[in-house]
Amino acid sequence: MSIPVPKVPSFPAAAHTLTSLGGLRAAGVRAGIKASGNPDLGLLVSERSIPVAGIFTQNHFAAAPVLLSKKHLAASGGLFRALVVNSGNANACTGAQGEADAHEMCARVAARLGCPIEQVLVCSTGVIGVKLPMDKVRGGIDAAFDALAHDVEAGRRFLAAIMTTDAFPKEASVGAGAGQVAGVCKGAGMIEPNMATMLAFVGTDFALESGQLREALPRIAAQSFNAVHVDTHTSTNDTLLLLATGQTPAPHDWEQHVTRVAHRLSWLIARDGEGATKVTTIEVTGAASDAAAQQIGKLVAASALVRTALYGNDPNWGRFTSQVGNSTAVKNARALTCVLQGIEVFRSGEPTAFDRAAASRAMAQEDVRLELKLADGAGRAVVLTSDLGYRYVQVNAEYTT
Amino acid sequence: MSIPVPKVPSFPAAAHTLTSLGGLRAAGVRAGIKASGNPDLGLLVSERSIPVAGIFTQNHFAAAPVLLSKKHLAASGGLFRALVVNSGNANACTGAQGEADAHEMCARVAARLGCPIEQVLVCSTGVIGVKLPMDKVRGGIDAAFDALAHDVEAGRRFLAAIMTTDAFPKEASVGAGAGQVAGVCKGAGMIEPNMATMLAFVGTDFALESGQLREALPRIAAQSFNAVHVDTHTSTNDTLLLLATGQTPAPHDWEQHVTRVAHRLSWLIARDGEGATKVTTIEVTGAASDAAAQQIGKLVAASALVRTALYGNDPNWGRFTSQVGNSTAVKNARALTCVLQGIEVFRSGEPTAFDRAAASRAMAQEDVRLELKLADGAGRAVVLTSDLGYRYVQVNAEYTT
Repeated sequence: MSIPVPKVPSFPAAAHTLTSLGGLRAAGVRAGIKASGNPDLGLLVSERSIPVAGIFTQNHFAAAPVLLSKKHLAASGGLFRALVVNSGNANACTGAQGEADAHEMCARVAARLGCPIEQVLVCSTGVIGVKLPMDKVRGGIDAAFDALAHDVEAGRRFLAAIMTTDAFPKEASVGAGAGQVAGVCKGAGMIEPNMATMLAFVGTDFALESGQLREALPRIAAQSFNAVHVDTHTSTNDTLLLLATGQTPAPHDWEQHVTRVAHRLSWLIARDGEGATKVTTIEVTGAASDAAAQQIGKLVAASALVRTALYGNDPNWGRFTSQVGNSTAVKNARALTCVLQGIEVFRSGEPTAFDRAAASRAMAQEDVRLELKLADGAGRAVVLTSDLGYRYVQVNAEYTT
Repeated sequence: MSIPVPKVPSFPAAAHTLTSLGGLRAAGVRAGIKASGNPDLGLLVSERSIPVAGIFTQNHFAAAPVLLSKKHLAASGGLFRALVVNSGNANACTGAQGEADAHEMCARVAARLGCPIEQVLVCSTGVIGVKLPMDKVRGGIDAAFDALAHDVEAGRRFLAAIMTTDAFPKEASVGAGAGQVAGVCKGAGMIEPNMATMLAFVGTDFALESGQLREALPRIAAQSFNAVHVDTHTSTNDTLLLLATGQTPAPHDWEQHVTRVAHRLSWLIARDGEGATKVTTIEVTGAASDAAAQQIGKLVAASALVRTALYGNDPNWGRFTSQVGNSTAVKNARALTCVLQGIEVFRSGEPTAFDRAAASRAMAQEDVRLELKLADGAGRAVVLTSDLGYRYVQVNAEYTT
C-alpha cells in the first residue's frame, strides 16, 4: 500500500538563535550515538553563571537526565553554566547505570569548565530502554568543547544535534527593543522508540532573576508547550529551560515576548505531528474556569475522531460538540456555540444551517481555528492539535524492532 | 490510494435471542427512514408488564429518546410493556420538535397496547441533527405491530432493524439451569454522522424484581459495555436495558450469567471498531483501587499510539508503560510489570529481555491480552479496546456531507 507522504513544510530561519544572545557559545557534533551518523551531541555554554528555570515531564518514568537536571536546578538555586544534550538515546528506563551515566556527562562538562556540577544541566532524547554508549558520549563532549563558537551557525549546529524524528528544524526569535528572545526545540508526534521527547531551550538577553524566570515559566508553558496535544502521551524526557543572559534591561512586558517565542516553537511541534497536514488551534471560551476550559480543549484535541475529521476537511460539528458534551468540566453544554474557521456550525444544541462545502474548503489550510464558546463563566484556554491521517498510522504501526 | 478492508468477521448465531424468553414478541420492518432501504424500525413487546432497568449516556447532549426513556423508567418504577427503536436517525440535537417526536412514538405504541405510556421505552440511532421523518416512523410502527411474532426469526429481524454501521449482527445467550439470558446490541466505532450509538437490550426469564435489576446493572455494565474504549467519545444515544420476564426462579448467581452475556456483546462491539483487526483486553491489577485501575486501563486503551502498535503487532513496551506513567492514578509506577500475550516485556522500570519477533507473532491474534501489574493495592479493572489501522482513518476522514 502506498501512503502519500505529506510535503515537509519549510519555514524561514529565525532572525536570531541562542548564540545571538550575549555570552553564549554552542556546538553540535557527530558523536556516533545515532546509527545514521547524524549530529547527536550538543553543548551550550555560558561565559558566566546566569539565571535559569526549568519545567520537566511529570511522567512517572522520568528519565535519569531529567531527575538529575531537576536536582541540579534545585541545588544551584537556578544558576546555569552549561547544558549538554545527546540525541539518539533517551537514557530512560536504564536503571542505576543510567543515573551514573547522566552524572558522568555533567561531571565531564563541569571539569572542563571548572564550575560546580550543579550548574551543568543534561538532556537526552532518543531510543528508550538502552544504555548510553558512554565512550561515544565522552568523545562527543570533548569534540563539542573544541567546536564551541559564538556565531549563528554554531547555534544551528546545536539545534541539529538535538533533533531526532523531527522533519524540520524548529527555531523562533523576536526582537524587543534593544533585547531579544530566541529559542530552539525538538519534538514531533510520538514515534517509539524515540518517545517524541519535547526539548525546548529558550533564552533572552533581558536582565532577569532566577526567581522571575521560575515564577513566569509555568504561565509561559501553559500558553505554549503544555497546550500542544498531538498524542495523549507525555514523554519520559520532556524538558523546557529558560535562560536570561542579562545584557539588556527587561521591559515590563518581557513575559509576553518570551511567550510569543514559546508559542511559535510549540506550533512548530504540532505542525510536525506524524503525517500532519495542519495545526488546529482550539479556542475554548466561557468555561467555568481556565482549568475547565483547558480540560475541555484537551478532550477535543485528543479525540482520534476529531483529528481524522480535521485531516479529511470534514466540518463535522457532531464530533466536536459531542466531545464537549462528554466533558465533566462543562456545566451547560446546551449553550455551546461552535465556530469553525469563522463559520458558525452549531448553536443552542442544534446544528446551524451552513454551507458544508464552503466550510470544508475553509478547513483545507495549514492553520485551522475551532472556537468552542460556552456560557459557564469566563474561563478560557487555547489548545493546539495536529490532524491524524494515513501517514500517522503508517509511522506508528510499523514494527519497530 | 487503496486501503485493505479487513475481512468482516463472522460469529456463530447465539442459541437464543430475546424472543426465546417467555412472553416477548418482536418485529423489525423497513419504514423507509434509512436511504438504503434496510430495516430501520424494531418493536419489542411483552405480554404483560415486567421488571426493567436501564443505564443511559451521560453525554450533555443526550438525545430526546434518552431523556424520555429515563423519565418513563422513573415514572413507571421500572415496569416494561414495549420498546420501540428506530435506526437511520438518532433524533439528537433536534430541539423541541425532537422531544415531541419521541413522545409521539411512545404514545402510538401505548395506544396500540392500551398500556400506560410510562411503560413504553424508545431508542433512536443514526444521523444526528436531522428531524425524524415522522410519517415514515408512524407507518413503521403500525407495520411492526402487524409483524410481531414469538419466533427466533422475529427476534433476528428486530436485531437487523436496530443496526446502523455495524459490520455484523451482535447477539449472545447463555443457558443457566432451566433459565436463560439472551441479548442483542448494536454499536461499532464512531462514524459520524451516526455517532456510533451503543444500544444493548438484554433479557432473562429469571424472576427478578426491578430493584434487583437496578441495583445489579451498574456492576454488570462496568464489566462489559463501560469497559469498551474504542474511542474517547460516548454517544448522545447510548442505552442499555435489562428485562426479566419471570418464568424461572433466579439462581443465586444470576448476575454472573447476565454479565457473561453483556461481556460477550461488548466484546463484539470492540471487535467491530472501524477497521479493527483484533480486540485487546487490558487487565490492570494491583492498582490503588478499582477506580484507579479503570482510569489507568482507559488511558492506555484510548491512546492512538497504543492502538496503532496493536494494529502493527508491535510489542511496544515503551508505549504501554509510558502511558501508565502518565496516569495520575498510579502511585509507584516503577513497580510496574507488563505482560503481553503471556510474555513479560517490562519489570521494575526496565524492559525485560524478550524475543520481539515471537512477541509480535503472538500479537497477530483476534484476541490480545495486555496485563499491567502494579503494586499500589488490590484494585483491578478490565478494559477492552480495538486497534487503529488505515481503515479507521479512511472511514473517519471521508467527507461526510
